[in-house]
Amino acid sequence: METKSIQPKTIASKAVISTDQLLSHWQGHRNLTRKVIEAFPADKLFTYSIGGMRTFSELASELLVMAAPSIKGLVAGEWPSYQEVEKEYKKAGTKEELLRIWDKSTEELNALWPKIPVSRFQENELFWGQYEGLVYTSILYLIDNEIHHRGQGYVYLRSLGVEPPAFWDRN
Amino acid sequence: METKSIQPKTIASKAVISTDQLLSHWQGHRNLTRKVIEAFPADKLFTYSIGGMRTFSELASELLVMAAPSIKGLVAGEWPSYQEVEKEYKKAGTKEELLRIWDKSTEELNALWPKIPVSRFQENELFWGQYEGLVYTSILYLIDNEIHHRGQGYVYLRSLGVEPPAFWDRN
Repeated sequence: METKSIQPKTIASKAVISTDQLLSHWQGHRNLTRKVIEAFPADKLFTYSIGGMRTFSELASELLVMAAPSIKGLVAGEWPSYQEVEKEYKKAGTKEELLRIWDKSTEELNALWPKIPVSRFQENELFWGQYEGLVYTSILYLIDNEIHHRGQGYVYLRSLGVEPPAFWDRN
Repeated sequence: METKSIQPKTIASKAVISTDQLLSHWQGHRNLTRKVIEAFPADKLFTYSIGGMRTFSELASELLVMAAPSIKGLVAGEWPSYQEVEKEYKKAGTKEELLRIWDKSTEELNALWPKIPVSRFQENELFWGQYEGLVYTSILYLIDNEIHHRGQGYVYLRSLGVEPPAFWDRN
């Protein structure tokens, strides 16, 4: 992967995606992941898995731990411990609670995002005090990780005989 | 999703990712998908699936049909029929042939990409004569679709008792 930072002048002349568009893209994916959570039978969400993998509630909770708290850390320049964040974002024991934390995170992301200065995306940051990289690569990692795990949720649903939501439906 | 086009001046001041970085990001993901193809037992690649889904060779072939040919169509401004493209990109009957077409596509993408004018990313295009949208959203769709299906391949591998490659390893 290209991880070299580029100068503001260069990105200005070679830019393909704006900060607002990147947030919309992520929130579109988050809308779809929410639909996948909704599509799970309430019990299977917490009990079903394939090949020794995590349940979809565990995967979704990991996404919650990594979404708003990552952007909060980036904006504040202070990284909490993962364990501390888990208490707030990884506590859902029911589908309703999981969806409630999901929606809270959606609002948090919308409020935090404009606080990231545009120049930051091409700068380095040690996410969670341990993952170093340009900010745009770390944020793409969060989005990609969500798509990756959600794709796994599709297999769980199919094997349960449940039709997953359409991949292109992000509203 | 935000699908409004934005003016060159605006994207210049709000840009977060350059065209070169987007290609590197995609090729990094393509490297990982190649590792997933390699990780499959040669027969299971063409026979194994879960919940009535497609085999991983079918999923990977779809990715091949959509990758280089999409960028070729975008650059040429002419869209071939899907059936025509399938003859060249969806014909692999062995793991080796699939990997060979994969590598050919990697070279094609690298050669085609610099021919996309930067301004095109914020313009509309009717991909394959039927999918309308801003070019950057359609390209992100191709990348996301690859992550989505590869995530499904991870479940296939896990259920076969095969350890998949690390998600973060894109080299």
